[in-house]
Amino acid sequence: MVASLASVIRNTVFVVLLGLDCVILPHSNALAQSDPLPSWNGGAVKTSITDFVARVTTQGGTDFVPPAERIAVFDNDGTLWCEQPIYFQAAFAFDRVKAMAPQHPEWKSQQPFKAFLSGDRKVLSEQGEKGLLTLVAVAHSGMTTDEFAKSVADWLATAKHPRFNRPYNELVYQPMVELLTYLRANGFKTFIVSGGGVEFMRVWAEKAYGIPPEQVVGSSGVTQYRLDDAGRPSLLKTAKVQFIDDGPGKPAGINMMIGRRPILAFGNSDGDLQMLQWTTAGTGARFAGIVHHTDAAREYAYDRPSKIGQLDKAWEEAKAKGWTVVDMKQDWKIVFPDRP
Amino acid sequence: MVASLASVIRNTVFVVLLGLDCVILPHSNALAQSDPLPSWNGGAVKTSITDFVARVTTQGGTDFVPPAERIAVFDNDGTLWCEQPIYFQAAFAFDRVKAMAPQHPEWKSQQPFKAFLSGDRKVLSEQGEKGLLTLVAVAHSGMTTDEFAKSVADWLATAKHPRFNRPYNELVYQPMVELLTYLRANGFKTFIVSGGGVEFMRVWAEKAYGIPPEQVVGSSGVTQYRLDDAGRPSLLKTAKVQFIDDGPGKPAGINMMIGRRPILAFGNSDGDLQMLQWTTAGTGARFAGIVHHTDAAREYAYDRPSKIGQLDKAWEEAKAKGWTVVDMKQDWKIVFPDRP
Repeated sequence: MVASLASVIRNTVFVVLLGLDCVILPHSNALAQSDPLPSWNGGAVKTSITDFVARVTTQGGTDFVPPAERIAVFDNDGTLWCEQPIYFQAAFAFDRVKAMAPQHPEWKSQQPFKAFLSGDRKVLSEQGEKGLLTLVAVAHSGMTTDEFAKSVADWLATAKHPRFNRPYNELVYQPMVELLTYLRANGFKTFIVSGGGVEFMRVWAEKAYGIPPEQVVGSSGVTQYRLDDAGRPSLLKTAKVQFIDDGPGKPAGINMMIGRRPILAFGNSDGDLQMLQWTTAGTGARFAGIVHHTDAAREYAYDRPSKIGQLDKAWEEAKAKGWTVVDMKQDWKIVFPDRP
Repeated sequence: MVASLASVIRNTVFVVLLGLDCVILPHSNALAQSDPLPSWNGGAVKTSITDFVARVTTQGGTDFVPPAERIAVFDNDGTLWCEQPIYFQAAFAFDRVKAMAPQHPEWKSQQPFKAFLSGDRKVLSEQGEKGLLTLVAVAHSGMTTDEFAKSVADWLATAKHPRFNRPYNELVYQPMVELLTYLRANGFKTFIVSGGGVEFMRVWAEKAYGIPPEQVVGSSGVTQYRLDDAGRPSLLKTAKVQFIDDGPGKPAGINMMIGRRPILAFGNSDGDLQMLQWTTAGTGARFAGIVHHTDAAREYAYDRPSKIGQLDKAWEEAKAKGWTVVDMKQDWKIVFPDRP
């Protein structure tokens, strides 16, 4: 049921209106080592990354790219951090509704809250997508942007992943964190381009990945500017969608918020396909990578026809175009960083 | 009539869907000089800027701000470059319609094109705002993002300002270009936050101001992702508005695209008021500046009740809150850079 909750949310717009806070330091120590990607096993995949970086950074080389144009974009869920058993954003939303319940006695007799809070999954599923949207929207609108960021930070400080029993923001992929650091050390500007809520990610992305708020592209809701009686301004988060940064929305989001075509893109699902197409369609050297979840022991093994992290089309195109496909089980020495 | 055209457009959403290309180099030579702001006359205004920068950059000082948080935002029209006698974006739009006319014989008998192309301002004004929107929309939708950028670059290479007889992109304010360079030299990250079209500005902003595309925040239209028969992707510009980055939309745009509250903001009109309020409402040292157009001889002198660059509310608030108001005539040694 949890998985189907996630699959429903995957297909909703509100999944992109969430937010977190993080305590993991950027693993820049990778730089200090002779191998900039110590958590990657040697082989064709690792070589395809280091060869590309060497080509675009070699002054005078035919594939040289000026630093200002070294834009690298990364999907987040399933590419930079875990997305199972449900999107961490969804976990935040559900926990948030439970935390808000005491202030909403009316929910005891009001669907979908009654079914959700009492764990009546049969009734909850009868509420369908609309019911889930109501739950998610409640967690992400009707408060100021500052209040939302605090609710995300508070959640991260207490919530634990059901399987790994670690704070969600510790479940980032160590090899990908090393890759981000390696790219920046080579003059790249690294961006997140995710279907996730931009305000959700910015709370923790800088500490987790070394990616500052202004380099996080995501989905967003409409905010309303208000002045209180004392003339103090605030931005109220509404439930109205502003922009959905997923699928064909990713090239649109890159165009709107970055304004330069990336030369490197990494994703893990069909929601990243258009971003990978857009990136590789540019002139000059381009890199497209896909994280393939093959490691049930250390993380999860899932692929088509899984609803979450579905890979049907992107997978076919990766094979046809020779994109780099990372086999998590084979290519990564470790998946998650050691406990801090 | 031209002024009233501009005033009508000022109040439309389509003014924000335009675009240019520029040949001015960032005036980083200012850095090499002992005075980082050589085009600014000495006085309270210049001192308010240099004092603020000294305070936030002094390690160990009570007002010290870490470099990552030194976000500076600037309005564009009337703050970084001239906006008279009409918004340069509007000038582009009207010239573009004329350039497109030969491919549209039907316009000869179709309003508002017929009136516009024949210079019949009486009939054109009878078409009202809707007529102008039609003209502006035609110049900014129905083509790919690449085609639009080229049309902007082509226009800039040929069009001249009616009074100064220089390419529009040469009519940037040299003192403000020096200010941008000075701030970056002191660890600030400089952004444009303009009601103007983000794709319009990115074509030329990097060369004009040293501000890269990913640091230009502006209004945008909806783009549609398409694949041609050969599988080549493109983004089609539609006439549908995505986001309006003006007035209360500026704090919303800063929240959506930057994700950090600026510590310095510069504007020139009531369209910048909320951005100035949002910036100064943050904790710690903050700077708010307004460019006041007082120089009819070297540029333009305009203020309330002028429809363009209106300053009623922002002007009152600046006086009440002690914001820095730049008197162009008094505070600037020169206005525009020397011819390249």
